[in-house]
Amino acid sequence: MTMGDPSGIGPEVIAKAFAAQRPALRRRFLVLGDSSIMSGAKAALKLPLTLNRMRTFSPSSMKEGAMNLIDFENVPRQGFSYGCEDRRYGKASVEYMDAALDLLGHGKASALVTGPVNKSSITRSGIAFFGHTEYMAEKTKTKRFAMMLLGGRLRVTLVTRHVALKDVSRILSIDLICRAIELTYEALTTYFGIASPTIGVAGVNPHAGDFGLFGTEEEDVVIPAIRRASRRIAGLCGPRPPDAIFYEAHRNKYDAVVAMYHDQGLIPLKMLYFDEGVNLTLGLPFIRTSPDHGTAFDIAGRGIASSRSMCEAMKLALELSGS
Amino acid sequence: MTMGDPSGIGPEVIAKAFAAQRPALRRRFLVLGDSSIMSGAKAALKLPLTLNRMRTFSPSSMKEGAMNLIDFENVPRQGFSYGCEDRRYGKASVEYMDAALDLLGHGKASALVTGPVNKSSITRSGIAFFGHTEYMAEKTKTKRFAMMLLGGRLRVTLVTRHVALKDVSRILSIDLICRAIELTYEALTTYFGIASPTIGVAGVNPHAGDFGLFGTEEEDVVIPAIRRASRRIAGLCGPRPPDAIFYEAHRNKYDAVVAMYHDQGLIPLKMLYFDEGVNLTLGLPFIRTSPDHGTAFDIAGRGIASSRSMCEAMKLALELSGS
Repeated sequence: MTMGDPSGIGPEVIAKAFAAQRPALRRRFLVLGDSSIMSGAKAALKLPLTLNRMRTFSPSSMKEGAMNLIDFENVPRQGFSYGCEDRRYGKASVEYMDAALDLLGHGKASALVTGPVNKSSITRSGIAFFGHTEYMAEKTKTKRFAMMLLGGRLRVTLVTRHVALKDVSRILSIDLICRAIELTYEALTTYFGIASPTIGVAGVNPHAGDFGLFGTEEEDVVIPAIRRASRRIAGLCGPRPPDAIFYEAHRNKYDAVVAMYHDQGLIPLKMLYFDEGVNLTLGLPFIRTSPDHGTAFDIAGRGIASSRSMCEAMKLALELSGS
Repeated sequence: MTMGDPSGIGPEVIAKAFAAQRPALRRRFLVLGDSSIMSGAKAALKLPLTLNRMRTFSPSSMKEGAMNLIDFENVPRQGFSYGCEDRRYGKASVEYMDAALDLLGHGKASALVTGPVNKSSITRSGIAFFGHTEYMAEKTKTKRFAMMLLGGRLRVTLVTRHVALKDVSRILSIDLICRAIELTYEALTTYFGIASPTIGVAGVNPHAGDFGLFGTEEEDVVIPAIRRASRRIAGLCGPRPPDAIFYEAHRNKYDAVVAMYHDQGLIPLKMLYFDEGVNLTLGLPFIRTSPDHGTAFDIAGRGIASSRSMCEAMKLALELSGS
């Protein structure tokens, strides 16, 4: 687990999630972070949690019931404050990530849970950074990747993500949709052990375009993508009207939904599972989960951040890594 | 109440909704339709419901416990079939509407519940027709109108509606958003009796644009519209992230939400209230409600259509007309 930006809510939600974890499960996790920050969070929250500081990872030094932490000692205590963009905090959060990728690359860990990072702080530290997921994809030479969001019964893969609404149509392509369908299929069969999954594919427009009456993206890209993916994958349904597909998924009609844009997928997920949604990155050479929130600088250090999403991210990582 | 297209599910859901209505309430409604179609639906469904046929409306001929119906005898029995586009059915459904507008215009009714019509059938009958709501707006010389969708605790006004996703940004304007906010405010204060309503206004883009990072519609039109509307209306919140605002509304943070496009509003509504959503037209000189489904030609005449939305439309019309 990476601690994420020291100045955000990452350390707080990790400390809370650890304290909520059954003691026997705690040693399944290794935190890469800074002990002074983590101790500070723990103390401020008065959490009954022991920190086991390590300089490097060795399985034999992992302690039962404790939060085992590799201490990078890379956050200066002098002048530290929560909710600040700072190149030093950006640099520190990248160091946790790089170390995590190294452990994963050497087979010393089977999954990664990431704490939220701050893009500006990282960019200020001189590192080219377009996003947490993009960074890991580049470092692992992964070309095909996508984000799946999970909450309750819903599993939703996004075809496009942080894109202005008006650009969604221009960015959508047969390739991109096909890739999201394939990655979803691979995740359902491999990670979730569903032999013959059913996948719902959403349309783009109201009523899925009503046969071209409101928009042609269904005819132009969604249907061709479904047709192409169907050569290898059975059990695809769509394009379905966006205002019906999530209701259907919630009623167990699909094992997952492929959504065309951010809010199409996020609105129904957040409606039902506001605090407990969790992200799963598809396509990376390892399992990676993360809470579905950011650094939340506005409430960092105040002790009021919800750790439910982080708890779910840890739970999912355990589940998928066969623990 | 207009029966809607004879060939759609309108007659069926009206018959079902009537049968489900407490007998004492039935005479609060007057159906404008065709008695042979309505009798057929009633008989096929074996509903214990008496039809009171009238040629014209007179309060004294309204019978307690019955479905009081003005019989236009305008649907030819010869060759009638469900699920068909037919100019004669289109013409018939417009006759019900025109008669309803006449009754409302003369103060003989205080609200209108409309059964679903078929655009193609009406167009084929030679009548220029762009939509049920647009037709009534034109006939009543109404320039400012909008659709509010209701389900459970949610009240959602749509700024744009049957528009391709890629055109939403182009069509949105300060005027259009401002008008939706004002109509929402008027409905909440007048129809729903909320003296100082709180109205949430959604953004357009993921995270409401994240300060221009993904799209500028928030800065360009939503914020200026909120600012302009705030001169007359207190209690406006927004632009809020689209994936947060409906959750907040569901938790009673707002009396209504103004949504920017069809699926932004419909996805959360349908997620929670799939069968029981109801439409309320804002801006007309009378109360008009309707079920949130169409003629559903694919299941018309099969007796399987859900009447929950029609029931809610009748209930809302009664409530808002002070009954």
